This record gives sequence, structure tokens and C-alpha cells, in this order.
Amino acid sequence: MGSSLNKPLSDRVEDINNQSSMIYDPWRHRGDVNSTYHSSSSVTHRRRNHRLSPLEKQKMKNIQSLNFSVNDNLLQREEYEKTTKGLHLKKTFGKWIICLFLGVIVGCIAYVIKMVVQLLQGLKFHYTNHYVSNGLQGEAFLTFLGINLLFVFLSCLMVIVAGPLASSSGIPEVKGILNGVKVREALGFRALLGKIVSLVLSFSSGLFVGPEGPMIHIGSAVGAAISQFKSSTMGFYPSLFLSYRNDRDKRDFISIGAATGLAAAFGAPIGGVLFSIEEVSSFWSRQLTWRTFFTCVIAAFTTNFLLQGIGSSPDMHDTGLLTFGFSRLYLFRYSELLCFCFLGLIGGLLGAFFVFLNIHLNKWRKEKLKQNPYLRLFEALFVSVVTSVVCYYASFIFDCRYQSNIVIETSVCEDQSNTEMVQFFCPDGMYSELGSLLFGNPDQALRRLYSRTNNMFTLPPLLVFTLISLFFSIWSSGLWVAGGLFVPMMMVGAGFGRLFGQTISMWFTNIDSSIYALVGSAAMMAGYCRMTVCIVVIMVELTEGTQYLVPIILAVMISKWVGDFFNESVYEHLMEQKSIPFLQSKPPHSTNNIRISDVMSKNVVVLPEVCQVRLLVNILNSNNHNAFPVINSGPYDNQRLYRGIILRDHILVLLFYRVFYRGTGEEIYLDENFDFDKFTTETSKSPPPLSEMNFDQFELDSFIDLRPYMNSSGVTIHNTFSFVEAYKLFRNMGLRHLPVIDINNEVVGMVTRNDLF
Amino acid sequence: MGSSLNKPLSDRVEDINNQSSMIYDPWRHRGDVNSTYHSSSSVTHRRRNHRLSPLEKQKMKNIQSLNFSVNDNLLQREEYEKTTKGLHLKKTFGKWIICLFLGVIVGCIAYVIKMVVQLLQGLKFHYTNHYVSNGLQGEAFLTFLGINLLFVFLSCLMVIVAGPLASSSGIPEVKGILNGVKVREALGFRALLGKIVSLVLSFSSGLFVGPEGPMIHIGSAVGAAISQFKSSTMGFYPSLFLSYRNDRDKRDFISIGAATGLAAAFGAPIGGVLFSIEEVSSFWSRQLTWRTFFTCVIAAFTTNFLLQGIGSSPDMHDTGLLTFGFSRLYLFRYSELLCFCFLGLIGGLLGAFFVFLNIHLNKWRKEKLKQNPYLRLFEALFVSVVTSVVCYYASFIFDCRYQSNIVIETSVCEDQSNTEMVQFFCPDGMYSELGSLLFGNPDQALRRLYSRTNNMFTLPPLLVFTLISLFFSIWSSGLWVAGGLFVPMMMVGAGFGRLFGQTISMWFTNIDSSIYALVGSAAMMAGYCRMTVCIVVIMVELTEGTQYLVPIILAVMISKWVGDFFNESVYEHLMEQKSIPFLQSKPPHSTNNIRISDVMSKNVVVLPEVCQVRLLVNILNSNNHNAFPVINSGPYDNQRLYRGIILRDHILVLLFYRVFYRGTGEEIYLDENFDFDKFTTETSKSPPPLSEMNFDQFELDSFIDLRPYMNSSGVTIHNTFSFVEAYKLFRNMGLRHLPVIDINNEVVGMVTRNDLF
Repeated sequence: MGSSLNKPLSDRVEDINNQSSMIYDPWRHRGDVNSTYHSSSSVTHRRRNHRLSPLEKQKMKNIQSLNFSVNDNLLQREEYEKTTKGLHLKKTFGKWIICLFLGVIVGCIAYVIKMVVQLLQGLKFHYTNHYVSNGLQGEAFLTFLGINLLFVFLSCLMVIVAGPLASSSGIPEVKGILNGVKVREALGFRALLGKIVSLVLSFSSGLFVGPEGPMIHIGSAVGAAISQFKSSTMGFYPSLFLSYRNDRDKRDFISIGAATGLAAAFGAPIGGVLFSIEEVSSFWSRQLTWRTFFTCVIAAFTTNFLLQGIGSSPDMHDTGLLTFGFSRLYLFRYSELLCFCFLGLIGGLLGAFFVFLNIHLNKWRKEKLKQNPYLRLFEALFVSVVTSVVCYYASFIFDCRYQSNIVIETSVCEDQSNTEMVQFFCPDGMYSELGSLLFGNPDQALRRLYSRTNNMFTLPPLLVFTLISLFFSIWSSGLWVAGGLFVPMMMVGAGFGRLFGQTISMWFTNIDSSIYALVGSAAMMAGYCRMTVCIVVIMVELTEGTQYLVPIILAVMISKWVGDFFNESVYEHLMEQKSIPFLQSKPPHSTNNIRISDVMSKNVVVLPEVCQVRLLVNILNSNNHNAFPVINSGPYDNQRLYRGIILRDHILVLLFYRVFYRGTGEEIYLDENFDFDKFTTETSKSPPPLSEMNFDQFELDSFIDLRPYMNSSGVTIHNTFSFVEAYKLFRNMGLRHLPVIDINNEVVGMVTRNDLF
Repeated sequence: MGSSLNKPLSDRVEDINNQSSMIYDPWRHRGDVNSTYHSSSSVTHRRRNHRLSPLEKQKMKNIQSLNFSVNDNLLQREEYEKTTKGLHLKKTFGKWIICLFLGVIVGCIAYVIKMVVQLLQGLKFHYTNHYVSNGLQGEAFLTFLGINLLFVFLSCLMVIVAGPLASSSGIPEVKGILNGVKVREALGFRALLGKIVSLVLSFSSGLFVGPEGPMIHIGSAVGAAISQFKSSTMGFYPSLFLSYRNDRDKRDFISIGAATGLAAAFGAPIGGVLFSIEEVSSFWSRQLTWRTFFTCVIAAFTTNFLLQGIGSSPDMHDTGLLTFGFSRLYLFRYSELLCFCFLGLIGGLLGAFFVFLNIHLNKWRKEKLKQNPYLRLFEALFVSVVTSVVCYYASFIFDCRYQSNIVIETSVCEDQSNTEMVQFFCPDGMYSELGSLLFGNPDQALRRLYSRTNNMFTLPPLLVFTLISLFFSIWSSGLWVAGGLFVPMMMVGAGFGRLFGQTISMWFTNIDSSIYALVGSAAMMAGYCRMTVCIVVIMVELTEGTQYLVPIILAVMISKWVGDFFNESVYEHLMEQKSIPFLQSKPPHSTNNIRISDVMSKNVVVLPEVCQVRLLVNILNSNNHNAFPVINSGPYDNQRLYRGIILRDHILVLLFYRVFYRGTGEEIYLDENFDFDKFTTETSKSPPPLSEMNFDQFELDSFIDLRPYMNSSGVTIHNTFSFVEAYKLFRNMGLRHLPVIDINNEVVGMVTRNDLF
């Protein structure tokens, strides 16, 4: 409901704000102290007062909310009387079936992505290594660069074709949708397909992007798609999924999908559930925990099952897109906890630094490059060229080392493949340190960084690696290619962690720098996205051991605290940049002394219970409000007593199907041809546009009875409410419209997301 | 607000139900179909229609709710205007400090309990084994029995002294409190102390009880105590903790405390967080996740640190009250998943069976033994005798086995102490199988059951052990001693799991029965308490490995489904037995076609905004309602227009301090001596009883202005609401009173927990 965009039409509708002035208002007992210094526009509501430009503000104002409340009208109530226990069971059972399919599909997608990436990277390194092994530096580089550029070009092209929603990780959009913000087409089929293809190509291209963020978006999109199972383009609306075709059930499936995407990507089902609880979801229930867990397990199991195949080995082991065989025998000392705290501090600082630079870079991009596909394509290609050059030529800075330098400790039962290093242009029996980290898959680099073998790397290459990966992570995030931040951040963290571990091992004995790498990764992740439990669990699930729980937890905590001192998580900032009015679970303290009557939209357009079609059409045409309180004029005829609320879309459907009132007096007449099923089916589609409905004179003179179709259980508040309490009510109940009534039950205002944000 | 217990006094207050009869009611359009077949008493609301006896119903009706909403009155608003950012920061910082202390204290309690139990059990077995090694069966048994009886006697005595709230696990009470039910003294100092002592003694006595459930209760009690930091008996109310002294903040600390108790008991911080999210807490927020996690880590770390000591070994490893060195090398095959499903099925069946028998046994206890301490004490001693006899003499059923039969596989790097068996009365070099399981600590028995060594036990002793432990778990739960169910259930599960594993290993090769024991434990736990993610995480944290995630998850899921088919979780049933009106997150389907006007209490007692003391005292004396809507009589004087709501306790404080109205007309006069601090301090204490206030005639003729003290942001609903939507609003917002208004904003009803349950 836009704020006072239009004057109401109906003659019954008048500004009655002054009408109740003789009634005691608990805010105004001391003159007009409050009424002056809070104007409606000065509501700053974020924990940190971000300054939004007028354009950004306007953009946010235009964003609509999703409709999480049940439309509890007469039809619904009649339907309830008919529904048996069997139907409820059927609906619940159907949800489990959808979850099963969701898990299997997301698992398969994760498998396909992993396989195709493996294939593409294999091809790239196959051709490049052909020249490398022949010692042809120039040719090798050109091949490397050429293939990378091709991948980035195609990846960026996919984004241009499928729209910018296919780029980046998509987590801010998912978070916004789960908070109740309508982000158009974010979970559409085009964005889904574009993201999958773009992700495969960008991840193969050697850019510093990871697959996890996009997998979360992909999971959410699959969840939205499979639960709705309709197509507006194809006009395909099967009735089987009708009962799930509302924003509320859709939200639950999107929550599940997001968790599932992460679970499949990391092979971490518990981590997935916690990610959904802690980070993306705004509404949660116990039932959802259980269903999400089920779906995550199915997805992780599917990926795992496909990766191993059933024929080759009957043993099973759970692996995800990224798993490390981490050693389990070493224990650390109490005194080392101080070092882990230090790693947490570094992680928090670097994380906050990352967020700062990334956000400013994205702002610059938004201003300079805008949505221009040529500039965006050029930028992506440019980043790719620089990345390729640096990754290729950085290896030449340092001398080659002898493979025989690496001594594997006997106490470690480690996967030996981790220690295979990259020879690059080194003589036989020697290896290139930076080449082993930069010239290959990120997975392999991470495995090497997490390796137990302490003397694998020297300090300078680790430092250079950390700086390079930090720099390119910042630069690559926000390009018009699909890509997440988890893996790049883990690389940065593992880099500085191992660097630190090896540094202090010069003074102290028995330091295992692999733990430091692990802890560094966790700290870095906590530093940029400010999650806690979720990161700890993911790290535990990745490394398959709980021995390092205490150091990881310590580092994550400190990192989060340090990061929070400087700025908010990268998702919060990105949501703001993308004009997604996200409502935090609590309003900021600065709103404590605002009253709801200061911020509510005062010129509410209301509809009478029985309304002439002519009037209705005029009212609908004259504004763009999405909901209208339905009023009863009461015994004194100039009143507008609140009775219920009805959505514009529902009125449009009623008008389109000519559900006119044929009764008399106060009796309610229900159209036989327009029962609950019909109403639900039609309102779940996109509503017909008003302009295409042509009413003849007779129809315009008819009446529509809104009472059977309005929501009689809509939450309202009195105008004595404080902002804070109204916010909590709005946020906790997931409302879209919150009518404000006065002492006489007359509608005096309307609160929507835009008034609260 | 009890339902229509008294007739209202005020002359303005009349039954105005018929007044709005000419106004359209969306429920009544088809005659009086609805109005007849829903009477107020027929609301059955549980998923399964439990039949409550009239006495039980009456008991539940008398139970009050906690007050989670902010009392947003004029004083509060004035206070907000004064509060600076620094004060908010101070409050947040204070919460972290409280969490830190909470973690340390709970960790220390867990350590003390573990140490004392170790000492007591050590003494017991020291004296018993003295006779055992001399071959004196009779003397050994009498010593064993005598010490067990002494422990049980003292443990039961503690419960008799401290009240029945110190018995059992206390999880239902904590769950109820977190849902908003006022369970008197459940978290009091007496219950806390009684529970700690009783737990130590009962756990040492060889009864089939575990320490985890009580630890959760202890954690919650510590959380409540430390955050409130007051004593009503000692009249000690420091102002430092004033801002946390409300039900809302207390609830959060209790949630954290419950998680922390579990985390300290199991050494499983993530499991603790998930337990709080999944099982006990009804209200959760993202901030809470983070704070709970911090506290859990602190507690687990404290216990761990104390157990290991800093001097002896500089290495650290995380262990809780119960940890197993589980082997990590073995992988299972896909075909075995079927077996794990079967274990899930068994776990679900046994779990449901356990719940069924336990509930009926408790019902029998409640009817026959009542609260009679002698009977209760006798019962506990009787169970102890039978347990001691069975645990002691069962070992003689089976022949001794040669210690040399146990072959430790070389591939396993296991803690060798696990395989040390109990010799009991066997010749040297031999051991008693049942003695190793029943004659010793539960921890040791569990360790042996989870041991990798396959040929440690034969099938018949395992079967007998499973049956014995199932039988005694059922019998012991509900005795008047403190004790939980986690460990006994794990033992049952491990028993049948290992039994099953060893049985099928007769036909198939390479079966590791230790995995089966682990999976069996998980299945059994899921079968009786119906948790999912939490159990999986606890098992992972206990065994320190994620390799067996898939089997555990599979078994837990199937077990939960199977169990849910038969009955609800043991906590749901116990809450009902304890007359705790717990509100599930969703109302049951059977309430779909009830309207809120059918169930609301119709004879609401209202108060005018400015009220004569005489009238007020009369009204307060004439009923036991806890809140009163404050009304304005409007321009037509016989109306009762809703303006706000005020609690009885707050009125009592106002009366006690003679905060009388001295103004005139509509102007509001605030008493200078009764500001926000004073109001908060006084209302956070127990209110003075009305009977002790003696008013003189002048005072009785005075007026009280309720407007500055009433809650102006109280949520209300219209009488057109459906039961389901009102329930959701009430439950999600954690309300205590929900006034119902009609089309004229007149108060026509009141909804409280008792109307919804």
C-alpha cells in the first residue's frame, strides 16, 4: 500500500484523522513534543544508519510483500467444514513426497554440476599441461587464458540472456523472499537454468568463485518450482498441487530448498539445516526442521550415491562436492587457544575489510556499469584475463622445491593424493609451490592447504597466495557470472591460517599448521557472513571429526564479534544494494520512541461491504494499493468501521468472473459456480488485468458482495500502538497489510513493510 | 482470566452480546448451523483426542500464563525517550556476561556431579568387590544392596524435602515454562538444589536413570536464577539486574540454560543448541542461537577443562560426561542400510511401547500413590531392591567366558580400556558377560556395547540385558528420584542394536556390530522422545565421527515415523499428566471450523480509564482475573470501548503505593514519586496482597488513573476471527491475554491459554 499516492474516491471515504481528537491519546499528554520531531520520513531503522539515496528509497517503496497469512474468508470456512482427516493426511503426505523429489533433484543437480566442472577443468588442464610438459611457456599460457576467457564469456553470456538474477550467489534474494519480500522472477525457471549453466562455466574458468552460494539459490528455485508445479507461460495449472500454491507453503519449500542446496554442495546435511535456521529463513517451525533435515539427507545421499556409483564399490562413505581426508590423531594444547583467538581476530578484520571493499566496489559497479551488458561482459573478461595472468605467472616468482623435501609423518593416516604437488615448469622431482595452489582446482588447493604435512609450503608463497586470493575474491564477487563466496573465503582463510601456523612453528614445537589452516578458514567465513553454528557444523562435517571443535568455535566467535564491530554481514549490505526491504527480527533501538501513527499511511482507501461495480472499478483504477479494508458504515453512516480486508488480486478475479451480488438486505448470497476450489484456483494464478475487462452498463450498475471473500481474521492494531510493538507483530506474523483502527474501530491507517523499513 | 467465574460489578459492565446482533456476522449467514453444534466445552484440540477428566480439566484451567509481552505504557515510553545508545549496549553486554557466568556455573555443576558420582560409585564397587574377590556371594550382595538402598533412600528423601519438582527429568516443566505456562517453583532454588543432590545419589545407586534430563532442568534453573538474581524470601532485589527481570528475558535465559545443561552433560555444544531449538523452546530468535551457542561452548569447555586439569596434560580433547572412543576406519555397505532401517523400525516400536507403558504406569502412580511420601519412598526402595537383585543375580544365569576369547582387530586404534571386562565371580582369566553390562557404571556398559571387538558378547546375554534394561527403564522413570531417560534408552538401544548386528553377522561377513549398537541407540532415543536433528548431532558429537551419519539419520527418521504412528513423544504425554497446558505451534485440524467467539470467555470484567478506588477494590476482590481491559465509555456512555489492558499485579502495586489521581478532566497526571524505575522495580516483585491494604474512607473515595500504566500496545482481535487464526496469533506472539472486540471496538470477550488449549 503506497503511502498516500491517491486521494480516495468514494464519498464515504474522508480523512477522519481529526475526528477522534477529543479522545485521549497516550502519546500526547505533554503537548506536542512527539508530534513534531518525528516526521514520517525520518525513520531510520537499521542498526547502523545507512543513508539511502532518494532513488533507492523510492525503489524500496515500490517493492511488494508476499502474502503469508491465510485468507480466512467464508469460502475457506465452508471448505474447512467439509475437509476430513484424510484430506489433511493427504496434504501432509504430499509435502513429504515433494520433499523427497526436491532432495533427489537437488542432489542430481549437484552431481551434474560437479561432473561437468570436472570434465571442463580436466579438458582445460589437459590441453594446458600438454604444452607445460613440453616446456612451452607462451603456448601453455595462451591455451590457459583462451579457455578461461571462453568459459567466462559463455558464463557471462548466460547471465545476460537469463537476466542479472542468474549472477552472483543469489543468497540475498532468497533471504529477502523468505522474509516476505516479493523479488520478481528470482526463483523463476530462467534464473534457475541460467544460474546452473553460468555456475558450471565460471567455476571451471579459474575465477575466484565457489559453487555453494549458487547451489543455495538453485535449491530454493527448485523448491519453489516443484512445490508450485505450474507454469504461467504455458497456462499449466494442475489441481494436484493446488493446496500448496500459496506464498506460505511456497516459503517453507524455499527454506527447505536453500538448506538442501547447501547440504548437497558441501555434503553436510546438518550444516544445511542450520544454515536455513540461522541465516536465510525468517520464519521457522519445528515441523520444518524435521522436513528440512529429511530433504537435506536425501540430497546429500543422492549426490554421494551418484558420485560413488553402486557397482564399483559396495562400501559407502559420505562425501560432498568438497571433502577433505583430515587427520585425526593430533591434539592441541591449551596454550594454542590463544593463537586460535588471534586467527579469529584476523578473520574478523579481513572479513570486515572484505565486506567494506566488496560493497563499495559493487556500488561503483552499479553507478558506472549499470545494467549495460557490454560493459558487464567486458569487465568479466578483463577480470578473467588478470586472474589468468596472475595465477599463471605468479608461480615463476619463487624457486622450485624438491618433492623429496616433503616428509609425511608416520602417525598420520592421510589420503596420500593430497600431497601430490604440481610440477608446472619445474624440473622432474621438483614442484612449484604457488603453482600447486593457484594452477589447478580450488578443491585441490584447499586439500593441500589442509594437509598434515608441515613442510609442504614455505612462508613467502603462502603470503602471496593469501593476498592474491583475497584480492581476486573481492574483485570477482559481483561480476555478472554465477558464483559464491564460500570456497574463495575458505582459501583465503586457509592461506593465512597455515601461514600463521607455520610462522609460530618456528618458535614452538609440535605445531600442526593444518589445524591453523582449518581454523583460519572458519574464521574467515564467520568474518564475512557472520554465521556461527552453521559454519562450525559445516567445518565439522567437511573434516569428519569433532576434535577441533573448540578451536573452530573460538575463532568463529571472535571473528564474528570483531566483524560486527565494523559492519554488518555481506548479505545485509547486498540486500540493501539490491533494494530488498528486509525486516530484521527486532526493530532497531532508535525506533523506540516512534508511534505507529507517525509512520502509517494515513490515506487508506476502503471499500464498503457491498460495493457497486462502477465504484469498485473506479477505485481500483485510481490507485495501486494491493489491499483494501472492507468497512461497514455503521448506524451513523459516515463511519467506516473495520470488518475485514480484501486483496486487489481477489477483487480482480471476482470482477473477471462477474461474481455479482443478487441478494437483498443483509443476507449473504454465495455464487454456486464460484466455490472455494474455483476461488483458490483462480486467485493462485496471475490475476486478469482490469483494463481488459469490459463491463456493460448493466454490469457496472450491479453490486459485488465482498463479505464472503474478504479475510475476516485479518490482524489489526489500535492507533495507540508503538512502532516497536507493531513491528514485532508485523514481523512475527509475517503480515503484508496491517490496518490501524481507532477507538471507534474506524480505519485510520495502514501499515505495510515500507512503513516499517 | 478464568471463564465467567464471577459476574462483573461495575454498572457499566453488562452483557452486550446481543447488542451487535443486527450486524453481519460472517459465520452466521446460513441460520444457526454453527452456533448450535459447537459448544464451548467441546473444543478438543490435541492431535490425538486425549480425554481429560473433569478434575484434570479444572486443574489446567487454574494454571496461569507467563507474561512475554512488553508492557508498553506511558512510563515505558517516557523511559525510551531518555535511553541512550549506551544503555542499550550495556544491556546487551550484560546479557553476554550473564551467559558467560551461566556457562561456567553449569559447567562446574556438571563437573561436580560427575566427580561425586564417580566417588560414590567407586566407594560402592570398592566395598562390594572386596567381598566379590573373596568369593563371598552373600556378603557382596548385601553390601551392594545396602549401599544402593541407602543412596535411593537419601535421593528420595531429597525429593520429599525439596518437593516433587526435584524428581524425574524436569524437561516437561521446562518445556511448559518456555511455552508460557507458569509452573510454580519449578525453577526455584529448592528444586535446583534438591535435584542436584537427588541426581547424584540416584545415578550412583544403580537405578536405570541418567543424568542428562536433570542436567537440562538444572541448567534452566541456573539460567533463571542468574538472570533474575533476586530472592523473594530474602527480599533481595538488586537494581543491576532490573532490566532482565521480566518473563521475556527470563525465558531466553531459561532456553539458553536448557541447552547448556545438555551441552555440559554430553559434552555436545551443537547438540545442546539444537535440543533447545528443536525440543524445549517455543520461541526462538537468531540472536538466541548465537548466545546459546556461546554459552554451550563455555559450559562444555569448563567441564572438559576441569576434568582434565591444566597441570597433568597440556594437550586438550573435548570430552563430556559420556564419551566413547569410537573407531573410525570401518565403512559399511549399501546393503546394510536395509538393516539400519530395520533397527529404526524396532527403535520406533520399542519407543512407542515405552511411552505407552510409562504413561500408564505414571497414571497408576498418580491415582494410587498420589503425593504420599511414605508410599513414594517405599516404591523407590522396592524398585531399588528388585533392580539390585536382578542386576546382581542375572550374571549367574550364563557361564563365564575366557578373556582370551576377545580378539582385538588390528585395524582398530581403539581405547583398550573399553575391552576390560568384569570378572565378577568368574575364575581368573574369565569374565561374566552380563556382569560386565549390569554390574558397573552405565558409562562402562555403554562403552563395552559400542566396542569394536565383535566377539565380546554372545547373543543370549545381550537379549537378557536388553529386556532387563527396557523393563527397569520403564519402571524407574517416574519414581520420586531425579533421573533422566537418555542413558537408559541408549543402553536399551545399544543392546538390541548389537544383538541384531551380531545375529546377522552369522550369515553375512564383515558386519561391525558396534555400528549397529550406535544406530540402535539413536533409534531408541528417537523412538521415545521424537527428536531428530538433535539426536543425530549428539550421536556424532559423542562418537567424534561423521562417518555413520547416514545410518544414524536413516534409523532416527524411521524410528520417529513409526513412533508417531502410535503415540506422541513422552514429553507431550507427561506435560498432559502434569496439567501443563502446552500450546503446540499449530492448532489441531479438528479446530478448523470453530470460531473464536465460541471459545472466548464472554463475561469480561473491564475497568474504566479513571476508576474509583472503592470500585476497583471491589472488582479485584470479586474475581480472580489476572488482567482487565481498560475501557472508555465513549460518547454514548453505555459503551465499553477498548483502550488498553492492565494486569492485576500492576493495579495492586498502584493501590499499595496509593498512586491516586489528582488531576481533572482528560488531563493526565503522573505521580512524581512513581516513575518508570519505581514501577518496574515494584512490579517485578511479588505484588502485595489486597487483603493487607487498609484504605480509609478518603482513599476509597479517591480515583486511580489507569491510563499511564495500562498497556496501550496490547494485541486485540475482532470477534469475526476464526479459532485457528486467533490461536496462531496468540501462540506466535506469546500472549497471555487477547481481548476480543466487536464492530464498535467494544470488548466482548477475552481469550487466554485455557480457552485455546
